Amino acid sequence: MPQFPLPPGSTLGILGGGQLGRMLALAAARLGFDVAVLERDADSPAGRVAAHCIVGAYADPAALAQLAALANVVTYEFENVPAEAVLTLQSLGVVVAPGPEALAVAQDRVAEKQFLNASGAPTVAFASAASAEQAVAVAAEMGPPVLMKTRREGYDGKGQRWVEHAPDAAAAFKALGGVPVILEAPADFVRELSIIAARGRDGATAIYPLAENHHEGGILRRSLAPATVSPALADQAERIAARILQGLDYVGVVGIELFEMRDGRLLVNEIAPRVHNTGHWTQDGCEVDQFEQHIRAVAGWPLGPTAAHHRVEMLNLLGDEADAWPRLAHEPETRLHLYGKRDAKPGRKMGHVNKLKPL
Amino acid sequence: MPQFPLPPGSTLGILGGGQLGRMLALAAARLGFDVAVLERDADSPAGRVAAHCIVGAYADPAALAQLAALANVVTYEFENVPAEAVLTLQSLGVVVAPGPEALAVAQDRVAEKQFLNASGAPTVAFASAASAEQAVAVAAEMGPPVLMKTRREGYDGKGQRWVEHAPDAAAAFKALGGVPVILEAPADFVRELSIIAARGRDGATAIYPLAENHHEGGILRRSLAPATVSPALADQAERIAARILQGLDYVGVVGIELFEMRDGRLLVNEIAPRVHNTGHWTQDGCEVDQFEQHIRAVAGWPLGPTAAHHRVEMLNLLGDEADAWPRLAHEPETRLHLYGKRDAKPGRKMGHVNKLKPL
Repeated sequence: MPQFPLPPGSTLGILGGGQLGRMLALAAARLGFDVAVLERDADSPAGRVAAHCIVGAYADPAALAQLAALANVVTYEFENVPAEAVLTLQSLGVVVAPGPEALAVAQDRVAEKQFLNASGAPTVAFASAASAEQAVAVAAEMGPPVLMKTRREGYDGKGQRWVEHAPDAAAAFKALGGVPVILEAPADFVRELSIIAARGRDGATAIYPLAENHHEGGILRRSLAPATVSPALADQAERIAARILQGLDYVGVVGIELFEMRDGRLLVNEIAPRVHNTGHWTQDGCEVDQFEQHIRAVAGWPLGPTAAHHRVEMLNLLGDEADAWPRLAHEPETRLHLYGKRDAKPGRKMGHVNKLKPL
Repeated sequence: MPQFPLPPGSTLGILGGGQLGRMLALAAARLGFDVAVLERDADSPAGRVAAHCIVGAYADPAALAQLAALANVVTYEFENVPAEAVLTLQSLGVVVAPGPEALAVAQDRVAEKQFLNASGAPTVAFASAASAEQAVAVAAEMGPPVLMKTRREGYDGKGQRWVEHAPDAAAAFKALGGVPVILEAPADFVRELSIIAARGRDGATAIYPLAENHHEGGILRRSLAPATVSPALADQAERIAARILQGLDYVGVVGIELFEMRDGRLLVNEIAPRVHNTGHWTQDGCEVDQFEQHIRAVAGWPLGPTAAHHRVEMLNLLGDEADAWPRLAHEPETRLHLYGKRDAKPGRKMGHVNKLKPL
């Protein structure tokens, strides 16, 4: 078992080789850690900045054994890490953070909302269904419109359908693959906000200012942070974050998506047990960004400060929008972050910019 | 030949695998570049964060051919890159930046001072000697005390001796290895300052605020930046930097060490054609740090802003001073940068901290 705080020179494992893994690896390197990435793709954004790259599936026992031989603390960039991968790593003496409870909750939208409500973090009304018939009955009982989502998997707006009339729930259920689903009441929100929060191994927490987020087609386009909010709203968000962190005995950074309702209440939309796209603003707006904060937490280091020193507008660069880099590089207020992805498919997150403004 | 500006996804080559190479590689990764490091040590600080690591001597033709096959723009972390390595790379179609003129000047203390004086950048009085007898004669003519340094090599105070009496110059010459030397008049300075400056491929320049530096035993211990200086002194330093950049048709970041004399004049002590230890404060004090600035310059990108948003005290962590990381990680105003070096020999630069203060 590793000793905490994990000393510099140790190797940290990361499951997943995408942009979040890459930015985690860069933050770990600044603190003197080596990084081992486990990723299916031999040429990944994170693998190219890591000391070690193990090519394999997350659940591949040989790959996990290789990772465990290099790193006795492992984290991930992606909440759909198979539970058996975590169990295998734990059986090899590896500490995985955030822990299996956080992963289990984040992988099942029903378990997630049950956990949230039980923790005093309110959500929209919801119900589950495991068949087309049940989906129709539940939709009728809730009263449409309802949003149907697969209980597991799905991100960036994939794996979900609006049901406008209860009988349509049968077709929606089939269109989503006939897998167990959650039905959610619509959230009549005025804004989408998010809060990035961290908890250390000692139980200390560090919470960043709120971000205001704008999605298009289910994909985050833009975050503004610190968001303009009343102290009462900020308090409410921080209380929710603290309950979630404590309820999961959490270690690491969590991204919590919130709906600001017309009546001033905050509902939790979803939680991501990892660094989060709506926290990228912290790279240029805060002294310790979400990536270093996550590394500090999982390595058992003290958490760092979360105050903002700049206001930031974060814009995702999707697909060929990243081709604008020559223009963006000319803007003095714009900090450019590019992920080293080879293939600019439409809608693919290729990079982001943080546009700085005075606080 | 590469096309400029070099697009993200290209591979940049770095000669040298130490901490400067590591921090350059991390900055390159943020902009979406891949990095290939050429370094004698298979397990180097920079190699561990680079996509490619070629193990070999700088002048090894096979290693240089490998590097040229990966990267058509190459830079370095170290001014004592052999001239033949640069010629070999150029013959393979590689653009090396900063260019060979800058390297030639930086590798020979006599050529350096001749260039500086010819460019209107004043230095202490100096003369060269190639034999013990000549050294004695020159020392007598200049009037001791004089500082004798090898013309080539030597850093962090190595390769130099004070000569208090002219006849002692013979012994000093022998102690320095019997190689060509420079003799320098003492600089009666009140402060050591430095200025980090950059020049792009388009000839644009970007100059950071001055740093005030404190050395012990020839090794930098501490920089304070932006240094408290009069506007006239800042102007004088910027004019010197601009002359040096233009005189060398420079591309990249240069570190210029200055003596502030009692009479208010600035003399140039030496120039380093690379990112510089006295510029580490820019990592946490400026929006675009010296590492990103250097990558921007060599990649033919526009230069970024150089204004400070924090005052910074940079402290080098030498040898086992880096063992203080658990305490340093607790200080909210302290940003920790560790280099991933395996072996904390006394005096070895293992990391640095930037302590932030309001401007």
